[in-house]
Amino acid sequence: MNVRDTVEIGLNRFARRGYDLDEVSIVPSRRTRDVDDVSTAWQIDAFRFEIPLVTSPSDAVVSPATAVAVGRAGGLGVLNAEGLWTRYDDPEPVFARLRDAADGGAPPTALLQEVYSETVKADLLTARVKEMRDAGVTTAVRVSPQHTLQLAPTVLAAGVDLLVIQGTIVSAEHVTTQGDALNLKEFIADLDVPVIVGGAANYQTALHLMRTGAAGVIVGVGADSFSTSDAVMGIRVPLASAIADAAAARRDYLDETGGRYVHVIANGRIETSGAIARALACGADAVQIGEPLRIAEEAPGGGIWWDSVAAHPRLPRGSTSAPLPSAGPLEQVLLGPAAAADGRTNLFGALARTMAKTGYRDLKEFQRVDLVIGGREA
Amino acid sequence: MNVRDTVEIGLNRFARRGYDLDEVSIVPSRRTRDVDDVSTAWQIDAFRFEIPLVTSPSDAVVSPATAVAVGRAGGLGVLNAEGLWTRYDDPEPVFARLRDAADGGAPPTALLQEVYSETVKADLLTARVKEMRDAGVTTAVRVSPQHTLQLAPTVLAAGVDLLVIQGTIVSAEHVTTQGDALNLKEFIADLDVPVIVGGAANYQTALHLMRTGAAGVIVGVGADSFSTSDAVMGIRVPLASAIADAAAARRDYLDETGGRYVHVIANGRIETSGAIARALACGADAVQIGEPLRIAEEAPGGGIWWDSVAAHPRLPRGSTSAPLPSAGPLEQVLLGPAAAADGRTNLFGALARTMAKTGYRDLKEFQRVDLVIGGREA
Amino acid sequence: MNVRDTVEIGLNRFARRGYDLDEVSIVPSRRTRDVDDVSTAWQIDAFRFEIPLVTSPSDAVVSPATAVAVGRAGGLGVLNAEGLWTRYDDPEPVFARLRDAADGGAPPTALLQEVYSETVKADLLTARVKEMRDAGVTTAVRVSPQHTLQLAPTVLAAGVDLLVIQGTIVSAEHVTTQGDALNLKEFIADLDVPVIVGGAANYQTALHLMRTGAAGVIVGVGADSFSTSDAVMGIRVPLASAIADAAAARRDYLDETGGRYVHVIANGRIETSGAIARALACGADAVQIGEPLRIAEEAPGGGIWWDSVAAHPRLPRGSTSAPLPSAGPLEQVLLGPAAAADGRTNLFGALARTMAKTGYRDLKEFQRVDLVIGGREA
Amino acid sequence: MNVRDTVEIGLNRFARRGYDLDEVSIVPSRRTRDVDDVSTAWQIDAFRFEIPLVTSPSDAVVSPATAVAVGRAGGLGVLNAEGLWTRYDDPEPVFARLRDAADGGAPPTALLQEVYSETVKADLLTARVKEMRDAGVTTAVRVSPQHTLQLAPTVLAAGVDLLVIQGTIVSAEHVTTQGDALNLKEFIADLDVPVIVGGAANYQTALHLMRTGAAGVIVGVGADSFSTSDAVMGIRVPLASAIADAAAARRDYLDETGGRYVHVIANGRIETSGAIARALACGADAVQIGEPLRIAEEAPGGGIWWDSVAAHPRLPRGSTSAPLPSAGPLEQVLLGPAAAADGRTNLFGALARTMAKTGYRDLKEFQRVDLVIGGREA
Repeated sequence: MNVRDTVEIGLNRFARRGYDLDEVSIVPSRRTRDVDDVSTAWQIDAFRFEIPLVTSPSDAVVSPATAVAVGRAGGLGVLNAEGLWTRYDDPEPVFARLRDAADGGAPPTALLQEVYSETVKADLLTARVKEMRDAGVTTAVRVSPQHTLQLAPTVLAAGVDLLVIQGTIVSAEHVTTQGDALNLKEFIADLDVPVIVGGAANYQTALHLMRTGAAGVIVGVGADSFSTSDAVMGIRVPLASAIADAAAARRDYLDETGGRYVHVIANGRIETSGAIARALACGADAVQIGEPLRIAEEAPGGGIWWDSVAAHPRLPRGSTSAPLPSAGPLEQVLLGPAAAADGRTNLFGALARTMAKTGYRDLKEFQRVDLVIGGREA
Repeated sequence: MNVRDTVEIGLNRFARRGYDLDEVSIVPSRRTRDVDDVSTAWQIDAFRFEIPLVTSPSDAVVSPATAVAVGRAGGLGVLNAEGLWTRYDDPEPVFARLRDAADGGAPPTALLQEVYSETVKADLLTARVKEMRDAGVTTAVRVSPQHTLQLAPTVLAAGVDLLVIQGTIVSAEHVTTQGDALNLKEFIADLDVPVIVGGAANYQTALHLMRTGAAGVIVGVGADSFSTSDAVMGIRVPLASAIADAAAARRDYLDETGGRYVHVIANGRIETSGAIARALACGADAVQIGEPLRIAEEAPGGGIWWDSVAAHPRLPRGSTSAPLPSAGPLEQVLLGPAAAADGRTNLFGALARTMAKTGYRDLKEFQRVDLVIGGREA
Repeated sequence: MNVRDTVEIGLNRFARRGYDLDEVSIVPSRRTRDVDDVSTAWQIDAFRFEIPLVTSPSDAVVSPATAVAVGRAGGLGVLNAEGLWTRYDDPEPVFARLRDAADGGAPPTALLQEVYSETVKADLLTARVKEMRDAGVTTAVRVSPQHTLQLAPTVLAAGVDLLVIQGTIVSAEHVTTQGDALNLKEFIADLDVPVIVGGAANYQTALHLMRTGAAGVIVGVGADSFSTSDAVMGIRVPLASAIADAAAARRDYLDETGGRYVHVIANGRIETSGAIARALACGADAVQIGEPLRIAEEAPGGGIWWDSVAAHPRLPRGSTSAPLPSAGPLEQVLLGPAAAADGRTNLFGALARTMAKTGYRDLKEFQRVDLVIGGREA
Repeated sequence: MNVRDTVEIGLNRFARRGYDLDEVSIVPSRRTRDVDDVSTAWQIDAFRFEIPLVTSPSDAVVSPATAVAVGRAGGLGVLNAEGLWTRYDDPEPVFARLRDAADGGAPPTALLQEVYSETVKADLLTARVKEMRDAGVTTAVRVSPQHTLQLAPTVLAAGVDLLVIQGTIVSAEHVTTQGDALNLKEFIADLDVPVIVGGAANYQTALHLMRTGAAGVIVGVGADSFSTSDAVMGIRVPLASAIADAAAARRDYLDETGGRYVHVIANGRIETSGAIARALACGADAVQIGEPLRIAEEAPGGGIWWDSVAAHPRLPRGSTSAPLPSAGPLEQVLLGPAAAADGRTNLFGALARTMAKTGYRDLKEFQRVDLVIGGREA
């Protein structure tokens, strides 16, 4: 391992210099290509997707129905096993209450804390998975590390295709003095379905998570524009650097295992098609996004956004947001055409065009595109 | 070739550090000179211009009439062969519709997409070129790389002086699996008129475009303040660095050909006289600008601004803009006097004064002026 | 001593590159831990505290009563011996006057100057200390270096536990031609109670202050968001660097004394739980904060904020601020739960969680957590 | 000469990295001192001043009467020989017209251009100098390099103490093909009064100006907050670096002449007491300021601000500004007390306090104070 670009913030106290996605840009190179000759497909385990999209398990954008719509558009929808859909038989009145309390603004954090205090029900979880399976798309459900031992049996029994074990920050080594901690490596070894796990923030954590046997590792702490993990916890993950580090871990792990390729899924303030292109250019295999999908007319939150951590009972770490107007059906948000030039619609059509304009045919090649630091956002 | 100033964004993933025009400034040196002793003239092929101005081929600022006015003021007006003037016999009602829909604000992208869905007509193209030729100025027309093979014969038959082949991003090597791609080198070799081609974003692309036989290479992706290629595609070109790289390509190409000097034309968020001076100081021979001309009272858009890429049917990459009030005739915008201190009028008179204050007589000498990075914009 | 990261601002004139707290962030590492297994306790001399909190001696947030409340919540409240509580028998009408003059905005500086022109009374000082002592918490009082010789006897006779000698900038060597200067080393040597002294801004000053025999050294010049020491005096202390330097001084002093550990207390624009975590991560043993406490419902200023330097008769160096609404009792501000995600409540519960998420058990270990420079504030 | 900190903006095109005053801050060191033991005096030729203040020759702040007031407060007032006071017998109606046209906002540039088109009268110039001389203060008048040969005889005959030859950018070598250029070296050699000349922007120009025999060199291009030399001409002078370079030139010139000390006077966006302290800390002997004086109740412009270059007939390079309310008499602005904490009053009292807090006795020592780059403005 080889860490460079450190600064000495004070005598003998060093910090690494990290770069955010919006500091890094893509530089067109000497070749161009027809957009129709470009593929944005990727594959994890036996599952192939036409677009490198994994949704955030946020109730604001993923219901069983929208997970199906995402699947049909070529991506992977991830339902939160610990969200409103498994706490309430009918969550629609809860969504309506949030929208009403918001009254065009942002719903209060205290209300979010209240509605998430309802317990999770196993039978609802089973029913939600069934609903997605019946639609014929690849199904994925997210559980938190804390509740994995409790909820995973239900999720697996319901026949999910991919299990996502995701917390803000997950490590391969959780230390506890109270009861049994989840041993990821043993847990995953016993499973029949592939597991995606995260978030991780640096080379070492990513490598250790790869060694647990995960099929995919989520990089980043899920910080969207409304995240406050910085103000609340002092934690910030410059995502471009974190992705590149995780890609290095992927390469090293590939070498140490003689061929196991673990997918790197980037997650954190990826809110435009430009940011998606950057994340992949830095080395990600796919992106996990939530906030950008709230402008789809199918979004359960009706344009309001909150991440699950915004509902934490003692230490919420994300603001809720006022609703954005709909920009059309989910398929248009993902695949275009765009009727505005803000990078918020035709998210993956734009990716294909960036790949074409820089001369690349597929995502794996595109990870080598030239990058530049600097320059003003246009 | 010698690339320095790279940063390691993550393990073994490197990016170049690029600088934008507004990060670089001109430093007065130990000599000063009378402004009347300064020349801002440049020459490309047999065509001499008193000011180093090539217009963007944007309908918002270039009609056949304004192209003539630009020529009379000493610059080169470039008409878009694929703009409103060749799609509509009388584009005035279209402009009026855009202005009315804008109602003092910015016209909607969807309307722009609609009016540009009309087809381009060869006879209109011929007539527009004739109108400019008849006025006695040097004529130039822009075609996109995609439509060059189709439109260039008409343009050339109409007797244009300079052909501009310009897309957001152009390479010397376009790969396609569908039909014939434009082979720039063969195409240019067969022509009798000099060709300006671009945009290019780095040393390599610029050098390859020079090797196609072009007389001028446009550097930059045309990103004005309203461009969103960053948000939409993740592409950003720090222009000061791109210009300096292209100037290095010019020097190397001059050496490898034993004397062919290809002009470097900078294009991208050059919106004040200060930015024009900086672009030339970094090594450009001329600037391609559009947005700054919209405050001329002759501007066809009546002060509204949009670039052609803002009208893309599936992926627009530029916002439209609300109108700015007129600041006087085009000649005053270009040559002064200025009645405001904002760098938006007397664009080339200001350039002459900067050259005088730093002691340079002509543009070629001025490319060596001292530069500084840093300092706050006043 | 080893100073790196210097820049040459001009020929042979060098400046050190310093980093502010908000430029530095905490990076989760490969281990996580249960929050219930984490301790935020620290101890200075014989006094142990459950949370690493020393209050600023600001009248806006510290009355004898709130100092007691801070003590009961596990921190150390510091009363200003030269504040309104020792100038006025009943300061309530003065607070009311400030609030009335502010009328929802910020009280005028001139009024602040006026109310602080009243003299300090020894009997009031004695009574205030008694009030705190009687409540059974650890008591601390702040005197300025200028008035230490005059006021300290009263403070000590009143039975204070810790003496805080604090000015904006304090040195171990004050030079004067007028009368006797305070010789900190001799003064401290004669005392029976431990002394905290500051603020200091670099390695050298911190080391010299440690050599005076102080039990704790305050690092930083107390600059909250409303401080104007930058605009008024050109003085700015990038706090992350200053803390790390002082931590190096602590290490070197520990070595030169064969085991005397002097506590480093960080003070300056620490206004969120994230900033508290960062300050400790950079090497501080505790934080001195004032402004964040003004949203406690017990805050004497009723949500208005001013630091003592804002009342300087000739050169005020801090603005007063409009009131913030109450966010609940002091205990909730310090220990949660938080009903908002802004990092302004549950200040030390958040710290514990950051320590847990990065795998550390206690503050001393946490000073080694990985840091990163860069990344956008979320 | 030794230039470091260069960056390669593109292949083989280098720029120096420069620092602005507000990027550099003063770091308190291990000693402090009583403010009463500090001297802010400086001396140029035979003239001693209690505060290191040279005014900008701006009509907005310097009339003959305010020049006298500045002198009485311990500084040097500089009247513009080419301003309104020498163009109009009674300029009061002109000021009134500017204020009326502004109507609480900023007066239009065109009106400024108009009122400055009146010719300069030699008899008025003589009378203005006499008015200042009669008051018994040190007198100084500014002429532009272009009009020095024409106006200087009148100025000198009127008995001025110091001559200021000042343009935005002045070099020791002005090249012209039209008539005689001012040869500074010959001109100064023939004079009996000391000359201050500038602005210069780097080591070389400063050194060459010192070699003309000037007693003082102005560093910087006079860019206040309303200057637009950046937008108009692409010229920006990071002042901290320029001052440090000029101080190096001063040192080298002192060495090459065996003892001639030429004073460095910093000029450019020095608008707070903090900026004054920084400029001196970077190596200046005095500061030339204008904009900060407009809040003095004696300011002729009544709080409006414009610099002379804002009135240029063809290329104005400064905006006019709306009036600021008066902050008291000039003496209070310069020497306090301050009733606000914004660094805009008690400008030189604050300087003395900064010197005291960092332990320095006089300005020459203070030029060695520790500096830091970075940190957020408080």
